[in-house]
Amino acid sequence: MIKSAYLAAALLAAPLSLAHADEGMWTFDNFPSAKVKAAYGVTIDKPWLDRVRAAAVRLTTGCSASTVSPEGLVLTNWHCVADCAQNLSAGGTDYMKDGFLTDARAEEKQCPGMQAEILAEIVDVTAKVQAAGRGGDGAVFAAARDAAVAAIEKEGCAGQADLRCQVVTLYRGGEYKLYKYRKYADVRLVFAPEFATGFFGGDPDNFNFPRFNLDAAFLRLYVDGKPARTPDHLKWNPAPPKEGEPVFVAGNPGSTERLLTVAQLETQRDLVIPVSQLQRSELRGRLTRMSEEGAEQKRAVTDPLFGLENSFKVFFGRQFVLNDAAFMDAKRAAEADLRAKIAADPKRAAEIGDPWSDLAKTQAAYAELFVRYYQLEMSAGSQSQLYRYARTLVRGAAERAKPSAERLPEFGDARLALAEKTLLDRKPVEAGLEQLYLEFWLAKTREYLTADAPETRLLLGRESPEALSRRLVEGSRLADPAVRKALWDGGAAAIAASDDPMIQFVLRTDPAARDIRKVWTARVQAPTEKAAEQVAAARFAAYGDTVYPDATFTLRLSYGKVAGWTHRGVTVPAFTRFAGLYERATGAEPFQLAPRWLAAKDKLDPAGVFDLVTTNDIIGGNSGSPLINARGEVIGAAFDGNIHSLGGAFGYDGALNRTVVVSSAAVTEALTKVYGRAALVRELTAAR
Amino acid sequence: MIKSAYLAAALLAAPLSLAHADEGMWTFDNFPSAKVKAAYGVTIDKPWLDRVRAAAVRLTTGCSASTVSPEGLVLTNWHCVADCAQNLSAGGTDYMKDGFLTDARAEEKQCPGMQAEILAEIVDVTAKVQAAGRGGDGAVFAAARDAAVAAIEKEGCAGQADLRCQVVTLYRGGEYKLYKYRKYADVRLVFAPEFATGFFGGDPDNFNFPRFNLDAAFLRLYVDGKPARTPDHLKWNPAPPKEGEPVFVAGNPGSTERLLTVAQLETQRDLVIPVSQLQRSELRGRLTRMSEEGAEQKRAVTDPLFGLENSFKVFFGRQFVLNDAAFMDAKRAAEADLRAKIAADPKRAAEIGDPWSDLAKTQAAYAELFVRYYQLEMSAGSQSQLYRYARTLVRGAAERAKPSAERLPEFGDARLALAEKTLLDRKPVEAGLEQLYLEFWLAKTREYLTADAPETRLLLGRESPEALSRRLVEGSRLADPAVRKALWDGGAAAIAASDDPMIQFVLRTDPAARDIRKVWTARVQAPTEKAAEQVAAARFAAYGDTVYPDATFTLRLSYGKVAGWTHRGVTVPAFTRFAGLYERATGAEPFQLAPRWLAAKDKLDPAGVFDLVTTNDIIGGNSGSPLINARGEVIGAAFDGNIHSLGGAFGYDGALNRTVVVSSAAVTEALTKVYGRAALVRELTAAR
Repeated sequence: MIKSAYLAAALLAAPLSLAHADEGMWTFDNFPSAKVKAAYGVTIDKPWLDRVRAAAVRLTTGCSASTVSPEGLVLTNWHCVADCAQNLSAGGTDYMKDGFLTDARAEEKQCPGMQAEILAEIVDVTAKVQAAGRGGDGAVFAAARDAAVAAIEKEGCAGQADLRCQVVTLYRGGEYKLYKYRKYADVRLVFAPEFATGFFGGDPDNFNFPRFNLDAAFLRLYVDGKPARTPDHLKWNPAPPKEGEPVFVAGNPGSTERLLTVAQLETQRDLVIPVSQLQRSELRGRLTRMSEEGAEQKRAVTDPLFGLENSFKVFFGRQFVLNDAAFMDAKRAAEADLRAKIAADPKRAAEIGDPWSDLAKTQAAYAELFVRYYQLEMSAGSQSQLYRYARTLVRGAAERAKPSAERLPEFGDARLALAEKTLLDRKPVEAGLEQLYLEFWLAKTREYLTADAPETRLLLGRESPEALSRRLVEGSRLADPAVRKALWDGGAAAIAASDDPMIQFVLRTDPAARDIRKVWTARVQAPTEKAAEQVAAARFAAYGDTVYPDATFTLRLSYGKVAGWTHRGVTVPAFTRFAGLYERATGAEPFQLAPRWLAAKDKLDPAGVFDLVTTNDIIGGNSGSPLINARGEVIGAAFDGNIHSLGGAFGYDGALNRTVVVSSAAVTEALTKVYGRAALVRELTAAR
Repeated sequence: MIKSAYLAAALLAAPLSLAHADEGMWTFDNFPSAKVKAAYGVTIDKPWLDRVRAAAVRLTTGCSASTVSPEGLVLTNWHCVADCAQNLSAGGTDYMKDGFLTDARAEEKQCPGMQAEILAEIVDVTAKVQAAGRGGDGAVFAAARDAAVAAIEKEGCAGQADLRCQVVTLYRGGEYKLYKYRKYADVRLVFAPEFATGFFGGDPDNFNFPRFNLDAAFLRLYVDGKPARTPDHLKWNPAPPKEGEPVFVAGNPGSTERLLTVAQLETQRDLVIPVSQLQRSELRGRLTRMSEEGAEQKRAVTDPLFGLENSFKVFFGRQFVLNDAAFMDAKRAAEADLRAKIAADPKRAAEIGDPWSDLAKTQAAYAELFVRYYQLEMSAGSQSQLYRYARTLVRGAAERAKPSAERLPEFGDARLALAEKTLLDRKPVEAGLEQLYLEFWLAKTREYLTADAPETRLLLGRESPEALSRRLVEGSRLADPAVRKALWDGGAAAIAASDDPMIQFVLRTDPAARDIRKVWTARVQAPTEKAAEQVAAARFAAYGDTVYPDATFTLRLSYGKVAGWTHRGVTVPAFTRFAGLYERATGAEPFQLAPRWLAAKDKLDPAGVFDLVTTNDIIGGNSGSPLINARGEVIGAAFDGNIHSLGGAFGYDGALNRTVVVSSAAVTEALTKVYGRAALVRELTAAR
């Protein structure tokens, strides 16, 4: 067994470099095919790109996926459907723990709140959006730009109910593109393995490698109650990949901050990450303890705890990369280089101005407002579903009474359908968890703003966080979708008349949240975006289109190869095999095997490839992305990064950063020999 | 009601300056009397200092106190006896929640594990200790110096069982002094208010001001079962102090890091504090949730959670001060000044060498080893009492077989008595808490070192943290003091023969902890101390004795005045009054009043002084210190700092940093009108 590096030590000892081979999360309309040809001898032409784009799927729940059969079958990660499996479980059935296996299509079940989207068209709208913002500052800039975006989105998909239009910000304002997606609001679960299989090794192994996770699952897109026709699907290749083979990942990386200025990174390092991580860590402690209170609590907590621990580790990595002086020095040097290039041309310099100083100044407002903005708006209600329902209802009623262009952006006409689906889909509400989240949020708000802050007094009155959260959760009927629907349809009048305590609480407290959001938009967000447009202009001027935009949960393609890595003299091979899984299983959580796997041991080839690592540059949101070979066939599903990739939000180091993938070979083998899913395997392989 | 500043915002916006009036935690043999005379017109002469020193008490449990009657009566904080009140509670009696009130001396109860100490004599041993370390490096340096210290401590108190000798490090190795303490191993609880009174406002108000805490308690020293004679006690002054009045705090500040070099501060900022705070935060979440599981859990968790939340806030403050670029720039400038002064004199420069670069180099070893050292040694077992007992027993048995000078320092002859008292005193062990602590420690060790680390495998074997912690706690009989005594007395043979699972666990795993400690001592601790001696020498050469040593939980005197402060245009007055307590009480925890206080409302003068703030420079460990007026009378007990003082470990800012004190006026009033403790009031006031 290869020793992984120590979590903190690995991060501290290996400062990220800033530019490397295989770096980049490229848009499909600016993919560096020449570079790939030179490095790997592979031709990635327009037809290849179009084919892959047409099969790449975005899940609105925060993941990526791909179509793998002509009948709407979709490959993604187990952890991308865990929430669905949890939501579909009830009354003794626990799909999260036991897995979800279908024999026939009739057994496939719709995932609440999930929508799948396939990118159909890209239209450049940069000039229109930038023009709208020009001439204004602060709140004026934000309002004009938001109105322009809302109008473009509305017009772009007018009369086409099966499309979703979204204006996408690239290069932090350097470009705006209208992305038109074909949307699938009916997405059903087909196959998910057991928790112990999908997440073998649990949090201790998360972001480590060697790994032994069958982190794969299948969904199916439905249209009008029937499987969708998806002729542009990827072909399934059940053969294991080879070391050094060129590979591609098509998916939706969620968020990177590689284009932030040094001043912005310092705010992340000194304020945003420390505050949010300390809260995440405490919430994790509360959830962990709750999960030990009984079987029912464990069932309720498993999925949210998994998500929280994943975020915790992501930000742990970010914090330690930013705490690395060498990394920050490299960022400073890169910024100095860019500024020098601009300064060298007086005309350019005059056009671009000094957005770096503008951003540095904006950091003072950021520091002044952040904690209030975080507590009252960003993290309001923590993860409470009831609170979110109430806020969507209260805000939605007020916003829908205005013209689309004047609303809060998330309530613009083009976005209402998804907001409504998210609000009205039937999902179980766990009262115990709800209470925990609300209590936590209220207690932390009091702690960070102090008991004497007017905002704390507004939230709590004379109640304690414990008592208030209990009263709201016990009294609210918003868990019932019919109640939510009546309030949504009833609009402002129904909201005002509601005696639901959660609605009343939000009605009473939301004005303070909207106030701080308004101030934040005017003093932090708008000046940041305005300056970032100029930084992007500077970067285009200095480096042309050899830069890729920061990730924004929109479709990207990354390239690389199958390869292990060497750190401090220890080489980690590219592949794990079935034998390793059985060696690692101690019988104690989270290293215990599901009974099916224990039973199947003798049927599996110990040398068969299980998981693998590649040099592709990905990040959270890419989960579920197909790993694609040069012929455009799917050979795995990306599900994680290695420990060195934890700083990937800020930079990529090709020597150490790795994408972790479950091979289609292992998935095929498991479906056949462990799960006996013959029909599913036939559908996959018939599609070749 | 005055608004307190936002927790994070206040810390971010107010960089600490590095030198100010009223700064300093001075030793009694180098008090800046001339400076005080010039600033306040008060004469602090040798007799004044001797009188105060003779009445100042150190509690080995981590607090300060003072004798306030000739019959051993001691004033300290409620929060300094909370642990005692918790330990004395059992079977339905809850002194922690309900307070501890005695009518007669016979009712006073001994505090388990608590020893009181009064400083009797100071002897300079710098030359001896420094000479022992000279010529060696790393492990050799550490062993020679530890042996010299052990010998000095042993000789210094030979044949005097009522004395405790301790070699105290000052100026991080610039001076070594032998402190001889008169020790009192029998300390009994006399009076403690209710939790709701001592800690009114709870964690939300902790480190804030205005405050309304009766954070005061009384103990009594006993010798041979009778109250100790303490003729040198302070006089009790029940009159409220006046605004601007010069005041003094005599006590034992625990730890400051004002003399650290910039490289050392960066390690604290980038590694030590982030890692330890994230763990503290998660543990806090687990304890908080446990406290909500039932009345019994709440009782068990209240005291440890209070301590943990206090530490959390302390380090939160430290983190944000170190994250402040202006503060670090000031530290850099101060270091440059010192180095320039040394470099200007070639002879001095040659003598002193370049300890700053040595320390900078040592930081690489620190970063490499810290996480392992932290998990396996520093925070091993988390707060588990059973684990600590087992480790003391296992290590004690091995160490006592060696000559005193060759043992781990904490088992030297002069230190054995206190180690034994701590081990053998009867204290309740809360099984649920024990299991939580052990599980947490094991889980975090696996997380930070990874599941594949040999140390993780050694600790866990094939068990999970959950199962292993349960097995150890359920099986161990170390909660019984008789069992511990038999193992302590039986030495190595008894340990080897023990079938106690906790003893067996420590026997099996402790070698790994001792190994990392050895490496840490040789590669981090010894080089740090050796270099720090040279930095101290540089500082003496450059600035003479106008510097005070970093706090080391030894007796210090600070001076200042009664004064509020102004921050961002808001002035916080120096005093709070009884009326404010009743205004702040919402009836909901932690702002609910104890029934006695509700009943006494009409008897109390609303304008009577309750708590106050002063400019004295103090830090944790000073809790319970007497606030003394110019005449040497006690007028209050220091119990906290304001929010701005949270960065006090690294610097002091006289404009904003404040000590928070409960007035003797309020204590007298409460004892009389709320608690009806006539005898106690008589003893206090008769002593005038």
